[in-house]
Amino acid sequence: MSRQSNRRSGKQQIGTELFILTYGTLVAQLCEDCKKDEDINKVLDKMGHNIGTRLVEDFLARSNIAQCRNFYETAEVIAKVAFKMYLGVTPRVTFWNQAGDDCSLFLEKNPLTDYVEIPDKHSNLLYSTIICGILRGALKMVHLQVDIQLLQDSVKDNKITEIRMKLMRRHKAVRKVEKEQKYSVGT
Amino acid sequence: MSRQSNRRSGKQQIGTELFILTYGTLVAQLCEDCKKDEDINKVLDKMGHNIGTRLVEDFLARSNIAQCRNFYETAEVIAKVAFKMYLGVTPRVTFWNQAGDDCSLFLEKNPLTDYVEIPDKHSNLLYSTIICGILRGALKMVHLQVDIQLLQDSVKDNKITEIRMKLMRRHKAVRKVEKEQKYSVGT
Repeated sequence: MSRQSNRRSGKQQIGTELFILTYGTLVAQLCEDCKKDEDINKVLDKMGHNIGTRLVEDFLARSNIAQCRNFYETAEVIAKVAFKMYLGVTPRVTFWNQAGDDCSLFLEKNPLTDYVEIPDKHSNLLYSTIICGILRGALKMVHLQVDIQLLQDSVKDNKITEIRMKLMRRHKAVRKVEKEQKYSVGT
Repeated sequence: MSRQSNRRSGKQQIGTELFILTYGTLVAQLCEDCKKDEDINKVLDKMGHNIGTRLVEDFLARSNIAQCRNFYETAEVIAKVAFKMYLGVTPRVTFWNQAGDDCSLFLEKNPLTDYVEIPDKHSNLLYSTIICGILRGALKMVHLQVDIQLLQDSVKDNKITEIRMKLMRRHKAVRKVEKEQKYSVGT
């Protein structure tokens, strides 16, 4: 992974820099450990899931977000609050299906890939896969089973990151507060 | 690694949370990969060095710090600016030797270990070693060869982190601006 010229500014992104460099180191380590890029992608997704299940507690405590009423709201909170909070960027939520349970997050700028250049031999590496895992893990903790795929990775040709999120099911709420509120797919 | 109850607050530490969880994931991965704790410590130090050589550019750009005149000033900048900036804590700089080239950084609270519990079988793991590597790498980029050791790790018995820094030598400055300024050991 080699460095490209780029710099974020602003107080909120200070800690992010250390995260981004540490993530690059983690991926480089996995490139040494794993034979296939597909295996690296799987490990990154699993690690992300693990991080997401823990990070959600921090997110809920800091953001003071109320329960979302539908998947539209959930997607908006992810884009406008969570991404902004942890990566300092706000993806565009778009390409909704008619049922309102399937959408894309578009990042024109993905800070995770700021310092990254992927060697040709890792052409199947989906560098930002950890984000999918984090989202999946975090959403699981609020009882949403969501299938999340990285459709476009910004370190590749098109320089855009597209994350597809499909709500598969809502698990029964355990907490009392959630039983009192309705959560529906679509509006 | 299991979670302990603890929470930081404040805007500056927001991105830090993601770094800390990602670091935990990285260490857990190394625990799977390496047979000996000593090998994990070496890898963490090396990774930290790699991160430090890159992070220093971000640090210099953000902090707008002038060239330090001696190692006292360097240690103060590390403690009061760098640690505060990236980890949201300020270690105490103490235990100076008479020559002024050897000191300790004491962290009563080490955010890196917030969510961490080390299994008994990893009794020789120095969890926060990456900090030593980061400091070593960053200082190398400003032409200071510094030996950095983790003397006490806060995930162990005493709950204090002590990092010992010994200035070994100052490499000849390459940049013109550095030739114009003196850097001496001690005052």
